[in-house]
Amino acid sequence: MLDMTPPELNDQYYMAYALGLAKKGLWTTDPNPRVGCVIVQEGEIVGEGWHQVAGEPHAEIYALQMAKEKAKDATCYVTLEPCCHQGRTPPCTDALIKAGLSRVVVAMMDPNPLVSRKGIEQISKAGIMVNTGMLSHDAEQLNQGYLMRMRHKRPYIRSKLGMSLDGRTAMASGESKWITSQDARRDVQCLRARSSAIMTGAGTVLADDPQMTVREAELPCELEADKKPSIKQPLRVVIDTHLSTPAEARMLTLPGETVIFTASDSTSAKVILEKAGARVIHLPNREREVDLAAACQLLAEEYEVNELLMETGATLSGAMLRAGLIDEMKIYMAPILMGNKTRGLFDLPNIESLEQHVPLDIVDIRAVGRDWRITAKPIYA
Amino acid sequence: MLDMTPPELNDQYYMAYALGLAKKGLWTTDPNPRVGCVIVQEGEIVGEGWHQVAGEPHAEIYALQMAKEKAKDATCYVTLEPCCHQGRTPPCTDALIKAGLSRVVVAMMDPNPLVSRKGIEQISKAGIMVNTGMLSHDAEQLNQGYLMRMRHKRPYIRSKLGMSLDGRTAMASGESKWITSQDARRDVQCLRARSSAIMTGAGTVLADDPQMTVREAELPCELEADKKPSIKQPLRVVIDTHLSTPAEARMLTLPGETVIFTASDSTSAKVILEKAGARVIHLPNREREVDLAAACQLLAEEYEVNELLMETGATLSGAMLRAGLIDEMKIYMAPILMGNKTRGLFDLPNIESLEQHVPLDIVDIRAVGRDWRITAKPIYA
Repeated sequence: MLDMTPPELNDQYYMAYALGLAKKGLWTTDPNPRVGCVIVQEGEIVGEGWHQVAGEPHAEIYALQMAKEKAKDATCYVTLEPCCHQGRTPPCTDALIKAGLSRVVVAMMDPNPLVSRKGIEQISKAGIMVNTGMLSHDAEQLNQGYLMRMRHKRPYIRSKLGMSLDGRTAMASGESKWITSQDARRDVQCLRARSSAIMTGAGTVLADDPQMTVREAELPCELEADKKPSIKQPLRVVIDTHLSTPAEARMLTLPGETVIFTASDSTSAKVILEKAGARVIHLPNREREVDLAAACQLLAEEYEVNELLMETGATLSGAMLRAGLIDEMKIYMAPILMGNKTRGLFDLPNIESLEQHVPLDIVDIRAVGRDWRITAKPIYA
Repeated sequence: MLDMTPPELNDQYYMAYALGLAKKGLWTTDPNPRVGCVIVQEGEIVGEGWHQVAGEPHAEIYALQMAKEKAKDATCYVTLEPCCHQGRTPPCTDALIKAGLSRVVVAMMDPNPLVSRKGIEQISKAGIMVNTGMLSHDAEQLNQGYLMRMRHKRPYIRSKLGMSLDGRTAMASGESKWITSQDARRDVQCLRARSSAIMTGAGTVLADDPQMTVREAELPCELEADKKPSIKQPLRVVIDTHLSTPAEARMLTLPGETVIFTASDSTSAKVILEKAGARVIHLPNREREVDLAAACQLLAEEYEVNELLMETGATLSGAMLRAGLIDEMKIYMAPILMGNKTRGLFDLPNIESLEQHVPLDIVDIRAVGRDWRITAKPIYA
């Protein structure tokens, strides 16, 4: 029977399949991008793979290994432009050319200056047909952090917030635990697992002494099996203007690194915290507060932070928002009212009239257990 | 061809149809309940009707008038137990019996003591088969106000609130207009149109001088045609502890009535307001504030208020919530952040710890233009 499906529809199917493979690396490829690859020979998938852990083979190599000689004259679908440079692993372009593919379909270009367009140029020059831009929007969504780091030298910054329906995060006393349900807390574990770093403020460290770790036992089971061995703990980042983080803070005793940004000149406090295992970085702005934009840039450049998750109170949330640094909010709304004597979501001291409000694009609202999760993106002027 | 549909499925279909007819009276039957009726003869709808305006014929009469002699041996579906008393119109039971129906299917009993179960008993005694309880939940939903008034001698109380995503209703200055969009304001017009009364606090009257009227031009067009002639203005109710409503308040100059509840003994203020057209009712509790429960009872008993819509600030919202008087909240959430220096949704002074929060049942969240409408019901201990 003749296959009457238009070829471009098949392309979409296989690229969607490749994107599904790429997603399997959501929690483990860091700091590399998530990439999936499918090799198709006469309508049959003969090879597939996804990038799993930085330093290990790229998606294309796994797919070629599986396809073997069937890769000859086949079409390769890959969600990100194949690399053409010797990094921790050899260039994928060489392997794709050597395998004798007839066509390579790429979802999006790699903005990494070591690759950008050079990858597809090499493949094209070798006489292989190249198509680009297939499902590029979905491919971008999967690697917002990597793309932000490559394009703008800062992480993609997500702010996680928990609130009551009336926008309250804590009692006046500071009491705040368990506003949201266990389902919401599990969902937050997924946000942590995909993040390169978790940021909080010294106020939260002093009040709650948080661990800021991924707790694998709390991750949803259906995603767990594949990636359990390779989840690494995100970098912990504390914004601490006056260097008041105690050396006994629990996070300093846990596996993984902690970086503290401060505007304080105190060398004694710095020495104590460094002895406790933290790296202390002095990065003041003219107002003698931490220069948040510079801190984010440093995290991208020195620590290759792709996605940064903020878990903070109203002061730091408000400051990051005013600095235009929050790309996305994940707000878990509990079905309770707490009343006006409690603490709110964002300190925005400069808003004096309704016209100065911060507009948002609400992109998704859905139930997470008994709570509701609102995904919103600030619209900066 | 044999009709293989089980009879109870046909019953559901026709009762759902009758409920659809009943809904057409959503804005006009007040203080009567919304009722729809279908008469079916051998699988064919031969008569239909709905109650339109109090004092005019009930749903059953319109349906019988349309069915004429085809009502003989037919089945009648009616969403509320037929009345058996001489009210503003003659009893429907007599007309149904006289028409020679073979069967009457009723969604729910009428809790009105003048009818309750007597209606179906009369029909049954006349030799007509009676079935009850078909889609009773949907029938209850349509007349929550009427049912609350009959069963509990108070209106069904709905609180309409507009807020930013971070739970703020107004700037610290009180500036609050246009937080939500025009689509949300149109949706509120629908809430007003179905309400017997609209309640606010003296603070809102002083700050905003609201009209609290149904503006027919702002109602959605698709529902407008049928009912436009008969929408009456809801009763306006002001909770005014110290009788500070100005005699120049705009609402006193508009068509329809205004009732002001107060705890103040000032006869001079009372005389001035009554001259301006308001009815002033002195109804203090022991704390020398307005006795809210008693006010709601009076509105049900003296004004036949079925559905009461609250459009108030945080003080009165909080007081009504603490008194257990809010049955449902309609919260319009605008996609903006206003920050912590602004006014919140509910004053709940007695909440001192997280365990004392007010739990809610969120029954619906949906987009209304660029805003989101959250429907929630407080769960009272």
